[in-house]
Amino acid sequence: MDKYYVDFKEGEIPKYITIAKHIKKLIDGNKLEDGEKLPSIRSLAILLEVNNVTIVNAYKKLQGDGYAFQKMGSGTYAKRKDINKSFKKEYSEVLKKIAGERLKEYIDFTGETPFSNFFPVASFKDVLNEVLDRDGAEALVYQEALGYEGLRKSISEVFWQDRVHSDDILIVSGAQQGIDIISKALINNNDTVVVEKPTYSGALSVFKWRRADILELPIEKDGVDVEKFEKLLKKNKIKCFYTMSYFQNPTGMTYSIEKKEKILRLAEIYDFYIIEDDYLSELIYDESIEYKSFKSLDKNDRVIYIKSFSKIFLPGIRIGYLIAPLKFKESIQNSKVNTDISTSSLMQRALDLYIKEGRWKEYINNLKLVYKERYILMEKYLRKYLGDKVSFISPGGGLHFYLKINNSNEVDSIELFRKAKEKKVLITPGTLFYKVPSDGREYFRIGFSQADENSMEKGVKIIGNILE
Amino acid sequence: MDKYYVDFKEGEIPKYITIAKHIKKLIDGNKLEDGEKLPSIRSLAILLEVNNVTIVNAYKKLQGDGYAFQKMGSGTYAKRKDINKSFKKEYSEVLKKIAGERLKEYIDFTGETPFSNFFPVASFKDVLNEVLDRDGAEALVYQEALGYEGLRKSISEVFWQDRVHSDDILIVSGAQQGIDIISKALINNNDTVVVEKPTYSGALSVFKWRRADILELPIEKDGVDVEKFEKLLKKNKIKCFYTMSYFQNPTGMTYSIEKKEKILRLAEIYDFYIIEDDYLSELIYDESIEYKSFKSLDKNDRVIYIKSFSKIFLPGIRIGYLIAPLKFKESIQNSKVNTDISTSSLMQRALDLYIKEGRWKEYINNLKLVYKERYILMEKYLRKYLGDKVSFISPGGGLHFYLKINNSNEVDSIELFRKAKEKKVLITPGTLFYKVPSDGREYFRIGFSQADENSMEKGVKIIGNILE
Repeated sequence: MDKYYVDFKEGEIPKYITIAKHIKKLIDGNKLEDGEKLPSIRSLAILLEVNNVTIVNAYKKLQGDGYAFQKMGSGTYAKRKDINKSFKKEYSEVLKKIAGERLKEYIDFTGETPFSNFFPVASFKDVLNEVLDRDGAEALVYQEALGYEGLRKSISEVFWQDRVHSDDILIVSGAQQGIDIISKALINNNDTVVVEKPTYSGALSVFKWRRADILELPIEKDGVDVEKFEKLLKKNKIKCFYTMSYFQNPTGMTYSIEKKEKILRLAEIYDFYIIEDDYLSELIYDESIEYKSFKSLDKNDRVIYIKSFSKIFLPGIRIGYLIAPLKFKESIQNSKVNTDISTSSLMQRALDLYIKEGRWKEYINNLKLVYKERYILMEKYLRKYLGDKVSFISPGGGLHFYLKINNSNEVDSIELFRKAKEKKVLITPGTLFYKVPSDGREYFRIGFSQADENSMEKGVKIIGNILE
Repeated sequence: MDKYYVDFKEGEIPKYITIAKHIKKLIDGNKLEDGEKLPSIRSLAILLEVNNVTIVNAYKKLQGDGYAFQKMGSGTYAKRKDINKSFKKEYSEVLKKIAGERLKEYIDFTGETPFSNFFPVASFKDVLNEVLDRDGAEALVYQEALGYEGLRKSISEVFWQDRVHSDDILIVSGAQQGIDIISKALINNNDTVVVEKPTYSGALSVFKWRRADILELPIEKDGVDVEKFEKLLKKNKIKCFYTMSYFQNPTGMTYSIEKKEKILRLAEIYDFYIIEDDYLSELIYDESIEYKSFKSLDKNDRVIYIKSFSKIFLPGIRIGYLIAPLKFKESIQNSKVNTDISTSSLMQRALDLYIKEGRWKEYINNLKLVYKERYILMEKYLRKYLGDKVSFISPGGGLHFYLKINNSNEVDSIELFRKAKEKKVLITPGTLFYKVPSDGREYFRIGFSQADENSMEKGVKIIGNILE
């Protein structure tokens, strides 16, 4: 306890601030480990001869400043500042800069959405004007809590063949918002969430923000290991499992139907919910892959289904939808209202018309043709130029490959990112997809959505040279 | 402790679930008070002869189901389910029904946004098409982290005469989202937030969701009582103060400049931040009211400023903006990304053009003329038909009046809502604006944004008859 001793000086600074400062110093100075338990409130109050409430305030301040966290029934713990933060910042600043200056000389393998030249702008403009002529002020004013009814009906009809009722669909502003509002409605402090390892960093951030306990399950060729999952369920009370069932981000892996059924059974037995982020399932190139979402297999109302239209269609429209179990319908709807009231009504109406008029299907079919070609090419280049330097499994769809560097002791993925950037090639290091970033040092992701044939070959060659 | 005793039956149900169920029964059955402390984990574990972790899981489940909450350094407490919930639901369902069926026979005094007939739909359609012709795919694809630069520059120039740099502005999807992302970035568990009493229910919901401790400060004619505020600051560590500086919702009160300066000083001395929701300040009818926001008076970077364009302009566009202190700039920006990536790019560009071409100013000027007339009329009818039955202060601007029922023992505001609804008039009961709903039983809000002259008179008369 000696190290906690603080000498209060006479003056203006409240004692709780002095105490918090002192503990921060201990953490920054490695005198307190990341995750080390702080003294109980009472014992520290006695040591420092202050009221309990002073210690409570000091611990609150530490929590607020990201230097401590609480565990129920167990006290307050020290927290080292996130060491990955600086790299995340570096990465997003590079991307921002390149996007901002539209630096065409870069070969961009970081992209997650289709190439903008393919976007149906003229066609979308048509439907926008059609909507404004048809609905007038309504299109810009009227808001339904669940989202525009026409769009919900189109989704039900076109994507679910009426097997999901339009009143069970909630329109949201993209998948990220879907994850956020589900988390608000479902996840409380210290609730346990299981994620795939690796997983989408935007989901990890939301769960961390909700102060969930996050457990990772390694992903394999056909989804997470079900036996490991059950072991984990036997030991822990799990609230939900976040999964991308098709072309998982970043690994590109797709769940087998068998595995989906097993996990659905586990959900029923161990009473947890599956948050299914249906990511890029439109882009199946390998015809042996069948499309059957967790949601479509779900008999016990265990799946919260999220679909984004921004990922594959127009990133700027910010529209997606949710289907939630009856049990959470109301709380998720409230969560949406408290998050941003509703999603842009005009955009919903335009998208509705776009789907109704069959333009959506046409667009997706064209996109699939183009990207299937690119996918085949990319696979070829990867084998040709990186064959002996990386290992990977071909996903059979989607917009990216996930590669393991065979000799990562020499170049890890962050170094690879930096070196490739020097040579005007951008990749995504695996470190961004893990709860413990260092777990991803051997991996990187290559997306082919933003690069054409020539630049694909050129870019992969450059990466090959760096890994030499 | 006897009442906590549980008899575990042999079988499949995990013990923690049995324990949680038992405690729920105690709460529902009034055998545990709202806010009563639950036994410590250890003592309950000993009583029930189970592991500590079983009790931790049981308490987690109770928290998850809304039957318990945690206090740092103090344990877990019972929580009675929100009694106001049922009325909130009743209220929002009535509104939804009427909006859904567009029941024109209702006189709607619940509105918070201008009448849709005034909306500049044709004009907005022009700018939308201009943008699509000018920017093509860019308009629907490209997304800047802070929001569209053109719009940020227009905001800086037109609304801040360049006194705020465009890079210090963050575009959000309306004020509600502004409050939500600020809360995520600033407010941790058990942080203390001060709100006006009464205040906007959407803000209360967000703060509750962040598990903040909420303290209320009664609002007076020219803002909250500064002396009471300082007393509260002396006793509590406050993280932030949420305020609507002009035509506060629901009271309609406006802060004097003197009070704003005093509160800014308090913020500096006691180290808290002011979240200023600049609500309807465009609609000043009383010329003695000067427009000077907290933000414009702030010398110490103490204000987080929120402005919505959805409230006064087009609810369906879902655009607003934030200006945050340097200290929080990055965390608030991250919070936005984690919430919904970004706001619809096309809408931002259209709004930018709308402002740049001077259409915004013209629209607001017209709106002000129309609503000033309605305001004067409404004031007249309130005095004529309700003069002896209610008390109120004329706000001098905005879109509503807040009335105190003089004889609320006979009719309280929820009864008034129900009775008025029978007669096809809709009002908003005060109960929706308080942390403890019953505090608002004497008050109700009348908005004149959705009602024309005839229906205003008719509606107020009907309310007068009910209060007779």
